[in-house]
Amino acid sequence: MRYFEEFAAGQKFTSPSHSVDAAAITRFAGEFDPQPFHLDDSAARNSIFAGLAASGWHTAAMTMRLCLASDFQPAGGIIGVGGELNWVKPVRPGDELRVEIEVTETRVSRSRLAQGIVKVQITTLNQQGDTVQTFAPTLFVDRRPA
Amino acid sequence: MRYFEEFAAGQKFTSPSHSVDAAAITRFAGEFDPQPFHLDDSAARNSIFAGLAASGWHTAAMTMRLCLASDFQPAGGIIGVGGELNWVKPVRPGDELRVEIEVTETRVSRSRLAQGIVKVQITTLNQQGDTVQTFAPTLFVDRRPA
Repeated sequence: MRYFEEFAAGQKFTSPSHSVDAAAITRFAGEFDPQPFHLDDSAARNSIFAGLAASGWHTAAMTMRLCLASDFQPAGGIIGVGGELNWVKPVRPGDELRVEIEVTETRVSRSRLAQGIVKVQITTLNQQGDTVQTFAPTLFVDRRPA
Repeated sequence: MRYFEEFAAGQKFTSPSHSVDAAAITRFAGEFDPQPFHLDDSAARNSIFAGLAASGWHTAAMTMRLCLASDFQPAGGIIGVGGELNWVKPVRPGDELRVEIEVTETRVSRSRLAQGIVKVQITTLNQQGDTVQTFAPTLFVDRRPA
């Protein structure tokens, strides 16, 4: 566990990998994003995705889980207020996802005494090393108790 | 269903509402964001959230579902490449969420002949009318066949 004071721009962290299967893709989509290209391979073949693809929100949720499993481990948890999110490439059944987290900025918070601000770039990659998603959130990290 | 040509900046769309309960919050968090403040009310009381709160990714996923249930209905589906995502306020058990979608820009695509670009601002609100999340994605919408 790292307090705010232990983070600095340029640090990099990595996660284990997570395997995505068709059942997980269609189950998530059935609950949150029931569009044909996320639910059915033959319907997906005639879509802009040209084959079954995970909902971007499923990719984002799996990315969150991978961040928690990484060596990033900020004190207080991974607590974000948001940031720029981009889906770069479809996530397919059989993909093995992993994340790379790079600290881009750290600064003290004017509004919060107990937390500092850590900005990170979170890149989600597949087994070919292709980027499937990027997310650049602003996080609050606990400061070291005095 | 609306083709690209039928969208214009300033148009607004709305969704029905969706009720969030504690079981759904902890189930989603258990799978994708297993941090104490998303899993357990007593642990959450001592956290930055001061009570059980939905994972931001759960709020985002519920927002997607609400967009699909809205009167927005772009031809080809709701297909985004990403955008700026912000969590403004925690989502709590008992909250009733709904979305408002406003078209902010439309333009033809240089790279795609069959789709146009529609930028929207998606605001997720609770039953008090407080904004809990904003998302400003760039979408691809099918053009009217010639």
